[in-house]
Amino acid sequence: MASFETSRLLSKRDLDFVLYEWLNVESLLSRPRFADLDRATLDGVLDTAARIAADHFAPHNRKADMSEPTFEDGRVKMIPEVAAALDVFRDAGFFSGAQDYALGGLQLPNVVERAAFAWFQAANIATTAYPFLTLGAANLLKAHGTTAQIDAFVRPMLEGRFFGTMCLSEPQAGSSLGDIRTRAAPQDDGSYRLYGTKMWISGGDHDLSETIVHMVLARVDGAPEGVRGISLFVVPKHLLDDKGDPDARNDVVLAGLNHKMGYRGTTNTLLNFGEGAYRPGDRAGAVGWLVGEANQGLAAMFHMMNEARIGVGLSAAALGVTGYLHALDYARHRPQGRPASAKSPETPQAPIIAHADVRRMLLAQKAYAEGALALNLYCARLTDDEATAADPEARADARLLLDMLTPIAKSWPSQWCLEANSLAIQVLGGSGYTRDYPVEQFYRDNRLNPIHEGTHGVQGLDLLGRKVVMQEGAGLRRLQRLIDMTAQAAADGEFHLLGRALGRANARLGQAAALAWKAGDPDRALANASAYLEAAGHVVIAWTWLEMGLACGDKVGDFYEGKRQAARYFFRWELPKVDLLFDLVERGDDAAFAMRDAWF
Amino acid sequence: MASFETSRLLSKRDLDFVLYEWLNVESLLSRPRFADLDRATLDGVLDTAARIAADHFAPHNRKADMSEPTFEDGRVKMIPEVAAALDVFRDAGFFSGAQDYALGGLQLPNVVERAAFAWFQAANIATTAYPFLTLGAANLLKAHGTTAQIDAFVRPMLEGRFFGTMCLSEPQAGSSLGDIRTRAAPQDDGSYRLYGTKMWISGGDHDLSETIVHMVLARVDGAPEGVRGISLFVVPKHLLDDKGDPDARNDVVLAGLNHKMGYRGTTNTLLNFGEGAYRPGDRAGAVGWLVGEANQGLAAMFHMMNEARIGVGLSAAALGVTGYLHALDYARHRPQGRPASAKSPETPQAPIIAHADVRRMLLAQKAYAEGALALNLYCARLTDDEATAADPEARADARLLLDMLTPIAKSWPSQWCLEANSLAIQVLGGSGYTRDYPVEQFYRDNRLNPIHEGTHGVQGLDLLGRKVVMQEGAGLRRLQRLIDMTAQAAADGEFHLLGRALGRANARLGQAAALAWKAGDPDRALANASAYLEAAGHVVIAWTWLEMGLACGDKVGDFYEGKRQAARYFFRWELPKVDLLFDLVERGDDAAFAMRDAWF
Repeated sequence: MASFETSRLLSKRDLDFVLYEWLNVESLLSRPRFADLDRATLDGVLDTAARIAADHFAPHNRKADMSEPTFEDGRVKMIPEVAAALDVFRDAGFFSGAQDYALGGLQLPNVVERAAFAWFQAANIATTAYPFLTLGAANLLKAHGTTAQIDAFVRPMLEGRFFGTMCLSEPQAGSSLGDIRTRAAPQDDGSYRLYGTKMWISGGDHDLSETIVHMVLARVDGAPEGVRGISLFVVPKHLLDDKGDPDARNDVVLAGLNHKMGYRGTTNTLLNFGEGAYRPGDRAGAVGWLVGEANQGLAAMFHMMNEARIGVGLSAAALGVTGYLHALDYARHRPQGRPASAKSPETPQAPIIAHADVRRMLLAQKAYAEGALALNLYCARLTDDEATAADPEARADARLLLDMLTPIAKSWPSQWCLEANSLAIQVLGGSGYTRDYPVEQFYRDNRLNPIHEGTHGVQGLDLLGRKVVMQEGAGLRRLQRLIDMTAQAAADGEFHLLGRALGRANARLGQAAALAWKAGDPDRALANASAYLEAAGHVVIAWTWLEMGLACGDKVGDFYEGKRQAARYFFRWELPKVDLLFDLVERGDDAAFAMRDAWF
Repeated sequence: MASFETSRLLSKRDLDFVLYEWLNVESLLSRPRFADLDRATLDGVLDTAARIAADHFAPHNRKADMSEPTFEDGRVKMIPEVAAALDVFRDAGFFSGAQDYALGGLQLPNVVERAAFAWFQAANIATTAYPFLTLGAANLLKAHGTTAQIDAFVRPMLEGRFFGTMCLSEPQAGSSLGDIRTRAAPQDDGSYRLYGTKMWISGGDHDLSETIVHMVLARVDGAPEGVRGISLFVVPKHLLDDKGDPDARNDVVLAGLNHKMGYRGTTNTLLNFGEGAYRPGDRAGAVGWLVGEANQGLAAMFHMMNEARIGVGLSAAALGVTGYLHALDYARHRPQGRPASAKSPETPQAPIIAHADVRRMLLAQKAYAEGALALNLYCARLTDDEATAADPEARADARLLLDMLTPIAKSWPSQWCLEANSLAIQVLGGSGYTRDYPVEQFYRDNRLNPIHEGTHGVQGLDLLGRKVVMQEGAGLRRLQRLIDMTAQAAADGEFHLLGRALGRANARLGQAAALAWKAGDPDRALANASAYLEAAGHVVIAWTWLEMGLACGDKVGDFYEGKRQAARYFFRWELPKVDLLFDLVERGDDAAFAMRDAWF
């Protein structure tokens, strides 16, 4: 099956470089949690992921796109290959790889689990979404649930028997969670009954698992308005019997499927809670249990959302990389035209990679996709430090940086790896626009990533409205200090110009935030938050590229030359864009702010 | 049918502004060719186009996307609404509106015909492609064909009885036309027999018309290699009987359909010429007739390609405008969240247009889409000057400008109105990603425009490699002089800062071209041609916006305030990007040029 070679999913060489030559993942192995692991085990996990991704996930990626799940007689029907692939995934232990031994896991570093996930995401983003959501829900419940909840729900999720979802949005409240209306009525036995409608729920229904564990935001009757009255509940699709196996249906009903432009293999659902379909009369109401404290649900849910945001960024990066590798392969083998200096029709046509403009499009994809992948693996590495660094200060430092980087790690790959996929189409030309090649699907699939788990607009508000001001600016200062250290480390070598440019851009990262907030008016300060987010993302990716450039050291060979050239490309073609964006933020440009509804 | 209101296709108010308040189309009516027309007639034509577009083209836009044409028993099957819509289009006279009285036309100005087409393109780009290609083929044959060819083919095309295509690409030669292999064998009766395979032929087969007239590039046996050996032929799907009606099938066979990401309602075909299917044995060969001189085919075909390129730009703009209008409507009616300064959950949610970032996305769409539409109508206006200006110098001047602007008018809307459609999706959020709303289709449809009729790469080579150097730079100088006149006209008014910025950018437009060519090495000069194209496009659109800003004069009212604000937006958020691009071109940045295949 030539089209499902691992070499067109991700670059194993690049992944090794990021994990071992830059992020020094082997150094983690000296920590107690990872004492049983060695490099060969990590490599084995990643190689297994690559092989299963190529053999079981990639082959049905197009078929799932062409035959999206349907809603028949109240149930979801989908192609059988999805369940078959997830069986292999489950049997190989990928649901629990990073979990504690006590929960049946292997205690892999998170960064290795994430890298393994990237193989599956590159092969089939839609099928991978089911375990992705399940792990997010399991980790959330593990962090905030009771021992009984963990035993009842988390263990079967980590065995891949139960799948999970996150139920936040409602038809009248997408990004504005303070306006959700789903209500939870307390019962005498300590449980709750939930009533309401949840929208855009990925993986909200299917027959892939024994049951589905919904993590649901709702308001306990009498709770305060707004975000301060939101609680988190666990609501299974089926109630469990005495043995913990799924039994009668809970009152959660699939009301419809959304039909999307891409990501079609993942069911995206409208769910009704408590309409009485499965529990009529006075038994109506979806049975659920409070997770954590009442009215503290949003804070708990952010645990899952932050993990999901980095995961979204990683999936966008994986799609960017696979699109790039497909375009590269095409460009090397497709003859078309000749260089401007050798136009004689007597000569054979050259492969299109001979054209500088094609190399530009490939280099841009490489810079976007490998940069995004590296940043998201860096963030995954921070989650390992947060959990396992010996020093409590180092753990807090990792948390601070992760908070700071999350909106960027989510939004930047979603924006620029979508652009990478567009360039992959462009390299293939008319062929790229057809469904005979996979790049158009990557582009359609990737277009969701700037929307779900918080749009660019939401991430911009998070970065400029919360993260740069949190702890009186400590997160921003920490990030800036790290970036400056990298810039200084480059001062005397081949990348000294890049170091200087990064230092300048980094200074503006702080200055622009300060000037945006100078007047203290949040509406004005945040009016250009998206511009700030985009600029900050470019600074952070430039930093990532300079880090990778420095990690090449004095090593020789094509691979390292390519890394160095991609770093140069990003600094020459991309980083200079930040000045324009910082200009707009710093002077509080009011073009959009002053625009009136009636003027449109 | 609320979803097919004309107000969500194009803005009639904006179209009137461009045609009458900026381009002064009424002044054309004093020319002899247009003596029978008046403003009311032009308005009637445009209103009729808007009504037919909304009533007959828009309603099946989604259905045609969901039910793309199929290839069954050697024939194309498609939904019946396409033929029904084209019947109405034909009966209303839109095939011949701009043609000579002698050919059954109304002698409308081209700019009005193009504006009418924009209504159809906004409503249904795929169905509109059939008459679009037919008119292109008819105009080509009219310009280069014999009287007999015009009578036989052009007249029925302008009656909408025969449709047309352009057959350039072949499987082994997409953008590289010098490598086409289709051969034409001369016959004793003066006709030719053609043998070969043509790829990516839009409208290449269907049952929408009595027959199809293919305009085909091929090599007469013994012709020189490369572009100097290409001739143009007219090859009908059916041979014509003595009365000129389609009779026996010619030897042109539909070999397959391409399955695309968007633009699905337009058949896109692989055609085999001369394989003997319909004319077996020694009758094999597609019967065709030479158009114009042998070996001069490419120059003739450029007549059609240039027209098609401006048409592609216009269609991209029309999709940009309709996406913008849909997003605007959604933003005004969708409540979600509250401004940062008024977060109390007690207050009702605000329509999302209240958020500055949503207004930014709408303003960007307005700036891209209305700017692109205006530029393409300006180009259409130039075609009227080229054909009907009293003064021969004015005609030549219009030709020169049109040559200069064509690569920009094709590529800029294709790039930025695709971005506008992406922003339209973003405004709608999760809804925008579903097929319940049309914006995702606009985005998919529009993604073809950067590819067909010459990719961005091809347009960049055309602009920097041919147009800026043609006639020793006369075209570039002429364009720069016009832009400077606009900049100077703004010097003393409210837009003086915009005028200064445009003047500076315009200076770099010339300087960058000169520096790129300074060393005289075409490979190096053209290595960054795409960057030059993108920068030149931004300069030209900034010029267009300043022209529109000045055309507002001292008029008051919401519409004019919106135009002024969009002009300001483009100058603050977009025009500054050109400096980075010109920097790269001027210093001959070699990031992509020096990148080696093995380094990827």
